Amino acid sequence: MMDLLEKMNWRYATKRMTGEKLPPEKVERIVESIRLTASGFGLQPYNVLVIEDEELKRRILPVANNQPQIVESSHLLIFAAWDGITENKIENHIQLVANTRNIPAESLQGFKNSMLGWLKSHTHESSFNWAARQTYIALGTGIVAAAVEDVDATPMEGFNAAGLDELLGLKEKGLRSTSILALGYRDADKDHLVNAPKVRKSKEDFVIRDSSLATV
Amino acid sequence: MMDLLEKMNWRYATKRMTGEKLPPEKVERIVESIRLTASGFGLQPYNVLVIEDEELKRRILPVANNQPQIVESSHLLIFAAWDGITENKIENHIQLVANTRNIPAESLQGFKNSMLGWLKSHTHESSFNWAARQTYIALGTGIVAAAVEDVDATPMEGFNAAGLDELLGLKEKGLRSTSILALGYRDADKDHLVNAPKVRKSKEDFVIRDSSLATV
Repeated sequence: MMDLLEKMNWRYATKRMTGEKLPPEKVERIVESIRLTASGFGLQPYNVLVIEDEELKRRILPVANNQPQIVESSHLLIFAAWDGITENKIENHIQLVANTRNIPAESLQGFKNSMLGWLKSHTHESSFNWAARQTYIALGTGIVAAAVEDVDATPMEGFNAAGLDELLGLKEKGLRSTSILALGYRDADKDHLVNAPKVRKSKEDFVIRDSSLATV
Repeated sequence: MMDLLEKMNWRYATKRMTGEKLPPEKVERIVESIRLTASGFGLQPYNVLVIEDEELKRRILPVANNQPQIVESSHLLIFAAWDGITENKIENHIQLVANTRNIPAESLQGFKNSMLGWLKSHTHESSFNWAARQTYIALGTGIVAAAVEDVDATPMEGFNAAGLDELLGLKEKGLRSTSILALGYRDADKDHLVNAPKVRKSKEDFVIRDSSLATV
């Protein structure tokens, strides 16, 4: 098997990057891994923004607490969830499934009903929160995909989401930003954490085995 | 590089599994990848439950809408987020960082203050929702790690979380379940989706390039 664990041990949330540009094909493979990952109902209720423009990164910097990776990265991936799920979006998804699999949309009525039933049990805000969680599946996928490509990556939540949405015109697109993944190369001279041991709970503290559950 | 895209194209949310058991080392590598993934503040505000007991899986089945993968899987990974973040949990994390890096806890006062400031801006429920999002990073990581191991995996949200928490005694552990990842092997004869084309939005619909943003 691929040595994924080696890659996962190598990666860390890089604090300082060199500004060196990634080969475009690496960016595209990371984005493609994200596009192929799972989401509830397969709905992919979000978009991924790919930001490489230096001037735009400079404008993003203050709404992201001036974290240096914003401008020292090669690319920023911004995950932006649908600002609420609608019947229309579900209908579009049914059409996509039907077209992709070359089957009549009518044959998907059961699937459609289950989505519509799910929608009825949600408010606008709770359906946004669900979509936001799906973006974290994408973020987790992007983190691994970057590591596989030997690309450093910093997942970021510490930004003013409303400010970023305003800057990028996301509201008009029906989107709200949820996280940023800065992609680039670690600056080993400047990043004081570059050689710091990875901090993780021990396997014993992290994993609960069914053999230890009182209910078994 | 590893051919991650090939693995991502191979994977799908498997509907029917054979019941065949995974080699334990594969389960452990998938869990270890999850343990090594990123989380906000590095806090890992969740546990991963590893369920392989057949009787327990049968008892989980009805609270998971009788989805057959529950009992046809080899193992279930259940992601369970902390039911709220507390100062005590932050203090424990500071101690873990200090111990792992062999530095005095006092040197981490700035980091601790930023976490405490964050905590003040959250209610109990909103801090749970943040922890729940972190479990989706873990879920996304587990989905990729399973694919790398040539293991089929089905991410599941369609279950009665309160019922599952009750069954597993999670409330007493200060946890609330957020998702399940069923691990096993696809049953190609029974799964009508085994050869269905993967449904994904086109790259053009999924990705927004900064060159297309009006603000640039």
